Amino acid sequence: MRSKTSVRRRAAIVPFVVATLASAAIIATGGGCGESKRAEDSFLPSWQAGATRSAIEAFVARTTDPSSPDFVPERDRIAVFDNDGTLWAEQPNYVQLAFIVDRVRALEGAHPQWASTEPFASVLRGDMRAVAAQGEPGIAALVGATHGGMTSDEFRQTVRAWLATSRHPGTGRRYLDMAYRPMLEMLAYLRAHGYRTFVVSGGGVDFVRAFAEELYGIPGDQVIGSTARLRLEVRDGVPVVVKTGEIEFVDDGAGKPVSIESRIGARPRMAFGNSDGDFEMLAWTTAGDGPRMGVIIRHTDAEREWAYDRESSVGHLARALDEAPARGWVVVDMSRDWIQVWP
Amino acid sequence: MRSKTSVRRRAAIVPFVVATLASAAIIATGGGCGESKRAEDSFLPSWQAGATRSAIEAFVARTTDPSSPDFVPERDRIAVFDNDGTLWAEQPNYVQLAFIVDRVRALEGAHPQWASTEPFASVLRGDMRAVAAQGEPGIAALVGATHGGMTSDEFRQTVRAWLATSRHPGTGRRYLDMAYRPMLEMLAYLRAHGYRTFVVSGGGVDFVRAFAEELYGIPGDQVIGSTARLRLEVRDGVPVVVKTGEIEFVDDGAGKPVSIESRIGARPRMAFGNSDGDFEMLAWTTAGDGPRMGVIIRHTDAEREWAYDRESSVGHLARALDEAPARGWVVVDMSRDWIQVWP
Repeated sequence: MRSKTSVRRRAAIVPFVVATLASAAIIATGGGCGESKRAEDSFLPSWQAGATRSAIEAFVARTTDPSSPDFVPERDRIAVFDNDGTLWAEQPNYVQLAFIVDRVRALEGAHPQWASTEPFASVLRGDMRAVAAQGEPGIAALVGATHGGMTSDEFRQTVRAWLATSRHPGTGRRYLDMAYRPMLEMLAYLRAHGYRTFVVSGGGVDFVRAFAEELYGIPGDQVIGSTARLRLEVRDGVPVVVKTGEIEFVDDGAGKPVSIESRIGARPRMAFGNSDGDFEMLAWTTAGDGPRMGVIIRHTDAEREWAYDRESSVGHLARALDEAPARGWVVVDMSRDWIQVWP
Repeated sequence: MRSKTSVRRRAAIVPFVVATLASAAIIATGGGCGESKRAEDSFLPSWQAGATRSAIEAFVARTTDPSSPDFVPERDRIAVFDNDGTLWAEQPNYVQLAFIVDRVRALEGAHPQWASTEPFASVLRGDMRAVAAQGEPGIAALVGATHGGMTSDEFRQTVRAWLATSRHPGTGRRYLDMAYRPMLEMLAYLRAHGYRTFVVSGGGVDFVRAFAEELYGIPGDQVIGSTARLRLEVRDGVPVVVKTGEIEFVDDGAGKPVSIESRIGARPRMAFGNSDGDFEMLAWTTAGDGPRMGVIIRHTDAEREWAYDRESSVGHLARALDEAPARGWVVVDMSRDWIQVWP
């Protein structure tokens, strides 16, 4: 990413989402499955006309047209979306990691021993490379210290408060203004055509839930993610469910088909991802009977966003890209297919 | 249960549910939150007018009326329902146990050693008391042998095929015709008022998913239950998610608030249960801020169904009944409050 874009206020995005949803609802109610080309245009204005957009629209058309041999009844119209790098930006590092770093700093005063204890000492020095070198145990310790001991609701409030003011160091934008406008349009477009949309994130489920409803129009029960073990406790006579901070399930790679089957109980019709961590989700989705679609968001836009794939540790994309043609997956070229990146 | 009722065909229930949903949708679309008394009547025709029904209707009215101080925005309208004994019958034993017994018999030929191996030998002798005496390890062995090694979809197909023909030994009805008509009305009534309805069952999640959509109008992703560990495998070159048969989570008692928080990410507004296994779910639900409602279905109808509570092992109800008045929970007296029990 070379150029800084101007800072946008978060307020801008909410009316956009609401307006998109409203127009979608009107068309879905009034138009049924026979929307005109003009109506389709109104759903995906940030998508360049061309092969990519046409492939997606053709799939939606034939799975929602009752006279099509590929018609899919509404109950089976399920679309799953990876979050980091698919619905919002993930460079130079996952937003949740920035949150963890800020939480460690905020809690440092109550934990003086952190200055000389790993992985906290490295975080406080800003040496994320040293944190990464500690692998999963290091991440688990950070998650435990910053996510544990509170209720899910308290945690989500903490995340919301942080998101309300935190900005990306490179763009100056709030993270909430770094969801991809074309993908917000895609979510509304699919929902208007009877698809239910789920987030399936490698990130923590409660972290994503903190903003998924407002940002994506996706309620908490349609957010799937990595989980910490929960425990029922009674505090001041009131039963509460508390996050232990102990990692229970990592929703990445082979974990994604497992979590989708566990939580949804069905193989999706459409899957959107951007990295090899989504490979199994796309492979499993598109191996099902009948019409299925896999979509890879490829980060090719060094001017407006970032360009990365094989060499990147965050959003590493190699195998899924290599196998996409043979598997019939649609590869979105961000610089070519997206008229606008941010809202 | 003293009298056998006539056998009903499953076909009878589908038009009923569809009609109920259709009328609900019409009223929801046309009437908003200001339905007339007549409209309410059309939702709950099997509920006797009186204190119980009025309490539920008053709660729904004040949580859906935007001018009420107890108004709840639609995104927060979540209602959770236990399954066995709350949505359908559970005597003399859980339907899933009848399924397991039939599966053991069906698979016996391929497992000659079962004739002399517990708990299978007891099942094959029809001695369910001996099975129960073996406790959780016995149940785990039965679940592993009858639920494991196949995909969730194959398992659900097996359950559906079994449900299509299996009948309750006492009533002669198909199990699918033993869902409570007043509760089917309740589900449609709440959905018509913007509530999302979830099943939260101690039974296996895939067992309940096999019929929840058709019987309750509840899609698989709104079914929460006990789970077996899942594993991604490649079979004949195709990735599939397989049930291992190894029990992962028992969704009963304190497990229910945990699973609800994990899967939905919110504390419900309404909870319906019928046994002490639902105590924590009702206690946690009703301890939340703002308007909340707990409802206990009490089995008081020895004529039309069964009468049981404290002395029963299946559907044991004591603590939740004792504490209901102090906690403000509504207790449904089946014989008094339900005009009709079955569809």
